Amino acid sequence: MTALPTEQPVATATDEERLARAYLLRVGEPPAPALVAFVGERGPVEAAARVRSGDCPDKVRRETAARREVDLAEQDLETAARTQARLVVPEDHEWPAWPLLSLAVASGRGVENVAAPLGLWVRGGANLAKAADRAVAVVGARLATNYGEHNSAEFAHGLATRGVPVFSGAALGIDGAAHRGALGAGGVTVAVLGCAVDIGYPAGHVDLLKRIADNGGAVVSEYAPGTPPARHRFLVRNRLIAGLTDGTVVIEAGIRSGARNTATTAGALGKVVMALPGPVQSANSAGCHALIRDCKATLVTSVDEVIDTVGRFGPAPEPENPRPRRPTDVLAPEALRVYEALVPRAGRSADQVATESGVPVDRVRALLPELEIDGFAVRGDTGWRRIVRSAPK
Amino acid sequence: MTALPTEQPVATATDEERLARAYLLRVGEPPAPALVAFVGERGPVEAAARVRSGDCPDKVRRETAARREVDLAEQDLETAARTQARLVVPEDHEWPAWPLLSLAVASGRGVENVAAPLGLWVRGGANLAKAADRAVAVVGARLATNYGEHNSAEFAHGLATRGVPVFSGAALGIDGAAHRGALGAGGVTVAVLGCAVDIGYPAGHVDLLKRIADNGGAVVSEYAPGTPPARHRFLVRNRLIAGLTDGTVVIEAGIRSGARNTATTAGALGKVVMALPGPVQSANSAGCHALIRDCKATLVTSVDEVIDTVGRFGPAPEPENPRPRRPTDVLAPEALRVYEALVPRAGRSADQVATESGVPVDRVRALLPELEIDGFAVRGDTGWRRIVRSAPK
Repeated sequence: MTALPTEQPVATATDEERLARAYLLRVGEPPAPALVAFVGERGPVEAAARVRSGDCPDKVRRETAARREVDLAEQDLETAARTQARLVVPEDHEWPAWPLLSLAVASGRGVENVAAPLGLWVRGGANLAKAADRAVAVVGARLATNYGEHNSAEFAHGLATRGVPVFSGAALGIDGAAHRGALGAGGVTVAVLGCAVDIGYPAGHVDLLKRIADNGGAVVSEYAPGTPPARHRFLVRNRLIAGLTDGTVVIEAGIRSGARNTATTAGALGKVVMALPGPVQSANSAGCHALIRDCKATLVTSVDEVIDTVGRFGPAPEPENPRPRRPTDVLAPEALRVYEALVPRAGRSADQVATESGVPVDRVRALLPELEIDGFAVRGDTGWRRIVRSAPK
Repeated sequence: MTALPTEQPVATATDEERLARAYLLRVGEPPAPALVAFVGERGPVEAAARVRSGDCPDKVRRETAARREVDLAEQDLETAARTQARLVVPEDHEWPAWPLLSLAVASGRGVENVAAPLGLWVRGGANLAKAADRAVAVVGARLATNYGEHNSAEFAHGLATRGVPVFSGAALGIDGAAHRGALGAGGVTVAVLGCAVDIGYPAGHVDLLKRIADNGGAVVSEYAPGTPPARHRFLVRNRLIAGLTDGTVVIEAGIRSGARNTATTAGALGKVVMALPGPVQSANSAGCHALIRDCKATLVTSVDEVIDTVGRFGPAPEPENPRPRRPTDVLAPEALRVYEALVPRAGRSADQVATESGVPVDRVRALLPELEIDGFAVRGDTGWRRIVRSAPK
């Protein structure tokens, strides 16, 4: 068993447990709900032995038959260590047990394809449990617009500035902009992959993934070292992005997209789903608009609204009390009617004002002096005149 | 009493009733809830006589004291006739009784400032009851962006094309674009004003108002001929835009704007409220976004969605079933995993595919021939290969 990188928190899993889970992670293509349940019942060590020998329930055998003889656990742990990665398992202090509970709960409620992971390969200095304790996912389309990439970076930057770790999927477009935005703020960002953490995918993000791992973040995957990306793996991976965070913000998404899938999964897990609006003609915002319109996502336009919507992070800072835009905003309806019946350059009698405004003349007589005190009217030789005041600064 | 323009439907109100309501409309500054209730109880003729003599309940006297001696009813009806306008009253066939019932109901429920109008001055050929039978209001900010004006015109054009009358407030910006869009489609559009129908306001829209009246639409107001615009009158007018329509679409609105006021009133009247999203940085969309975020408006991005949301107009045309974007979209999850474990340029055995995909080898053996039949795979000398198919046209 390879030693863990020294700066990592003390692991509490035994070598035997970690080896067993490394084996099981390679054997069962995630999500493997029967296998996960079996490991939950028997513990990883006994479950691994039974899977290896075929002495397990039919459903588990079915999920593991194709690869149960492929035991590369020791080799995988060594490969990981060589690439500065480690295997975090549920027996470790670092396991994000609380956020991932949502997967087990949803799975138990019958939501499909959301079984919890058997372990997570992690590259980078972040403590996974800590990063996932109060995190937000920022996700979206690969073929993003400038509008989408700009806002992804802005939102991630703002979240990171407020100490909220930003999770995403390391894809081109919105995901990459989110990771970069969080890094730019010196914040923690976590990339959850649909391939192994030692695969440089997407090729254009090899440097970005290294920067994430080297700057207090983490690159995370449940796929054994060497596992290539595949389309179904991205969809399966999406449940981890949703599961590891408190809420997901969809920045841009086509009407049919992986990001919408993450949002749907987040909703099924009981997490907060948010989406950014955009121009109605933009196909890249159509998925966001559909989520909002169908009440599957809350519209957000700022980081404060994200924090406010997720809720758990404490209240958003009170917006400054918007100043009245016009001086007359302070006037009660009747006083406003009297004021509007005055003109600046000609005097009017109380009777004229009453007729024009429809306010009874006795009230007009009471209101005019009040308006004068407040600087809205003045009494002159020819009657009452309006004083036009500039807006407060 | 002046004769009505001949092309109008037969009025059922008596001259006495119409004169009484013309008097009451000038005497009570709308909304005058006590006066409206009093007219409901006593009928317009008795109510007018009692208001004139002061023999009415305190609240009614209060609402009418300032102008009860101003009896210009005959003169107002004559002025109206000279400007091709008429007074439509609840006793007329043309009265939009059903949509306006929402005002009486909300007023009875305690919603403030939404009393029904005592009558409506109308310029233009539209039958008011018919126009308001299935109508949508398209409203928004005066200081609109190109984005807002473009969409206002597009939405109004689309609604008019589907035979839905478009109501708005004739203001510069969004309102004007809505009226023009509906006119461009040869549809019915109705402008509800915060001043009398014979006042050319706003000055830049004098021609537009004439085009509306001359092209089967209507210019509508509860203010007696000659009444100038005033800020409180625009707010009071907003209840009529909301009340006369089934739903209101806010195209652009600042965080604090008259359009948001119309939307709030429409909601209080139990009408459908919709809002268009826009770029998050646009201050002109901030009011729309706030309405959507606070669940006070449904997000809409197209005319079909407006029709669908308002509901009463029959179902929106079924969207064409979106074609699968990729040929493999037709594959079940297991078949997709098998397909993705194949490569185009090298043969693989069923065992290799099982290991790579995690699908049991017996299922792999069953699925490969199915994939071959569907054109996704081919069996060669070196094993199974993937066939890459282009997307369906």
